[in-house]
Amino acid sequence: MASFDCLSFLTDYGLEDGFVAACHGVAARIAPGARVIDITHLVQPGDVRRGAAVLAQTIPYLPPAVHVAVVDPGVGTARRAIAVQAGDALLVGPDNGVLSWAVAAFGGARRAVQLTNGELWLDPVSTTFHGRDIFMPVGAHLAAGTELTAAGREIAVADLVTLPAPTSRVHDGQAEGEVMSVDRFGNVQLSIPAAQLGRLGVGFGSPLIVRCGRRQLTVPFLETFAAVAPGEIVAFTDSAGLISLAVNAGDAAEQLGLPPGAHVRLSAVHQA
Amino acid sequence: MASFDCLSFLTDYGLEDGFVAACHGVAARIAPGARVIDITHLVQPGDVRRGAAVLAQTIPYLPPAVHVAVVDPGVGTARRAIAVQAGDALLVGPDNGVLSWAVAAFGGARRAVQLTNGELWLDPVSTTFHGRDIFMPVGAHLAAGTELTAAGREIAVADLVTLPAPTSRVHDGQAEGEVMSVDRFGNVQLSIPAAQLGRLGVGFGSPLIVRCGRRQLTVPFLETFAAVAPGEIVAFTDSAGLISLAVNAGDAAEQLGLPPGAHVRLSAVHQA
Amino acid sequence: MASFDCLSFLTDYGLEDGFVAACHGVAARIAPGARVIDITHLVQPGDVRRGAAVLAQTIPYLPPAVHVAVVDPGVGTARRAIAVQAGDALLVGPDNGVLSWAVAAFGGARRAVQLTNGELWLDPVSTTFHGRDIFMPVGAHLAAGTELTAAGREIAVADLVTLPAPTSRVHDGQAEGEVMSVDRFGNVQLSIPAAQLGRLGVGFGSPLIVRCGRRQLTVPFLETFAAVAPGEIVAFTDSAGLISLAVNAGDAAEQLGLPPGAHVRLSAVHQA
Repeated sequence: MASFDCLSFLTDYGLEDGFVAACHGVAARIAPGARVIDITHLVQPGDVRRGAAVLAQTIPYLPPAVHVAVVDPGVGTARRAIAVQAGDALLVGPDNGVLSWAVAAFGGARRAVQLTNGELWLDPVSTTFHGRDIFMPVGAHLAAGTELTAAGREIAVADLVTLPAPTSRVHDGQAEGEVMSVDRFGNVQLSIPAAQLGRLGVGFGSPLIVRCGRRQLTVPFLETFAAVAPGEIVAFTDSAGLISLAVNAGDAAEQLGLPPGAHVRLSAVHQA
Repeated sequence: MASFDCLSFLTDYGLEDGFVAACHGVAARIAPGARVIDITHLVQPGDVRRGAAVLAQTIPYLPPAVHVAVVDPGVGTARRAIAVQAGDALLVGPDNGVLSWAVAAFGGARRAVQLTNGELWLDPVSTTFHGRDIFMPVGAHLAAGTELTAAGREIAVADLVTLPAPTSRVHDGQAEGEVMSVDRFGNVQLSIPAAQLGRLGVGFGSPLIVRCGRRQLTVPFLETFAAVAPGEIVAFTDSAGLISLAVNAGDAAEQLGLPPGAHVRLSAVHQA
Repeated sequence: MASFDCLSFLTDYGLEDGFVAACHGVAARIAPGARVIDITHLVQPGDVRRGAAVLAQTIPYLPPAVHVAVVDPGVGTARRAIAVQAGDALLVGPDNGVLSWAVAAFGGARRAVQLTNGELWLDPVSTTFHGRDIFMPVGAHLAAGTELTAAGREIAVADLVTLPAPTSRVHDGQAEGEVMSVDRFGNVQLSIPAAQLGRLGVGFGSPLIVRCGRRQLTVPFLETFAAVAPGEIVAFTDSAGLISLAVNAGDAAEQLGLPPGAHVRLSAVHQA
């Protein structure tokens, strides 16, 4: 396999300790020619679903790379460590679903191995810091040109752990979904693709009914949040192609009380 | 135009999402040879003035570079996207003033273009993430050697949006200014250049009267905050050449109740 | 002396200002071929001990490098600025102990100089930002191949300021130590090496008595925190070889009320 010029790195390690830097050091020793792009290290501790979402939405914009993603609340237990080939990329991490949405975004897994070749790992391996001792060393060796199959024994791609995809469906003139994530700006990303609004007859400029629990509000569907006055609520198609709710110059998640996972329904004002 | 080895990047995107990394990925694809220096991504959302201040104070220490700065509360509206040549640098961002203090620090704009050449952008362009889809792609193309004039149509440098410079004046034996910024240590940076204190006859070791609203306190003007005992207040010349107020081993902004924008007057104890 | 491909950088500068980026810029101008690995910039302002601990635990995983560490509450005062050769590395920073545990981890100082050669510094030098104006310029020159002895006058390694090592001792069937640090996950790292538990007859699977002040609790000593149910407390050997206390999927420091510096004693349930 060809080598890669780029390694990406996503974790829940935070930035106040030296954990991320230790992994950068390991990468620099094994694959000194590879550029490391940090995706984020501020995933909430153990939030595999959030890690999977950020990874899948970000890596399509990266060069061909080895992507190392470690949100691993089960570190040191029987969960498998894996490397997966998908599209023009390799992905390395725990087999707990954190890679699964990214693999799907690349068109599905073509091949997968369980990381069993300890010769690629640091020695000794700690029980709690597999990012430093297993995942990054393997990722860096793969970036430096080691064959995927040299990292361990091949496993069936059908057996890989996958997270359930975010729910989204259209029925009875409503698009139903959930809050995928809340970004730094407080924008509320829904699991509802923009295309579904078209099926409901909602276009730019149309009012949109948003229902969440017993609450209901009507907001304009516009091209961008900056199209409304500061403080006003708006629905728009975000940079991932999903419907998002925003308050211009404000925090929609806080104002609307919509945390990740909340169930939301959208519909046109005058349904057919 | 020559190519650049360095891209700098400043935004209000935060570090918990994958926004910054997506832009890094775009840069790595278009200009794989350029080093990216992150200035900060923790500008408060939409705080154009703060972004402008950090950019202007930081980039004089960078190598010749293309500087991409995106604090862009008007993204998707009619505000222009621009690239500006100033000194030995190029600056790319929205035409809302975020670049203006940096341009001034480089001696003013020599040439400017409105970004109209969509061939340099990602396709499609989202309405809300122009950092990823327009500004960074253009910045990376410029770093890779694309001519400035190939990025769009030339516009008059006199028409660029500029932020009003921070106020500062000396009259009636007082130097008047405002709080420019508060740094991580709680140090309060004023818009008053150190040279103005000299005009008031204040030298190192002199006491200084600080007035803010109805409050008044007398603090020593010393070479560094570490020259006073822990917990004591001091005025000093900071690393940007401006007068700052600090509490040694403490948080001056909190203790003095001086947020950005607060009006402050300084004077010698015995005025002429 | 050979040049180095890698510079590491640790400070308490935070990430919201442009301080770290200004130093990166200085490094890129002087040593454009060196990769910079950021260890952390979120050391609490002025917490020299925390900076020393993170540095010492992280840099063994980095390639041979010049390590620049600036936690410097005495900047601008008479404290010395130094560069130290230890192992295959050079370390640059204030002589206040922040380098001392890292130097010890590399087997002790082989040579040291006080930074007195102003030709390697920026001009002018501010009184409060020696990271940008002295430490990083010197570090970058050393990375680019400047001899250590060209940075200043040689000083006795025995005179370097060292922090007292974290206390830890075994007596009366107890291992006594203190809380070294609390990481992002709330895991409480003790100054007690795992080997000391062996001397107390505690092995994996054994219960362990933890005493702190008047409180006492019994927790299992296991291979990893993920071996207990969510919400349960566990002791384990962490990735630095020290005993740590964790709450699986929880925050041990908060739940146990154990801040850095707290005194802790460990013993077997049935002491000999």
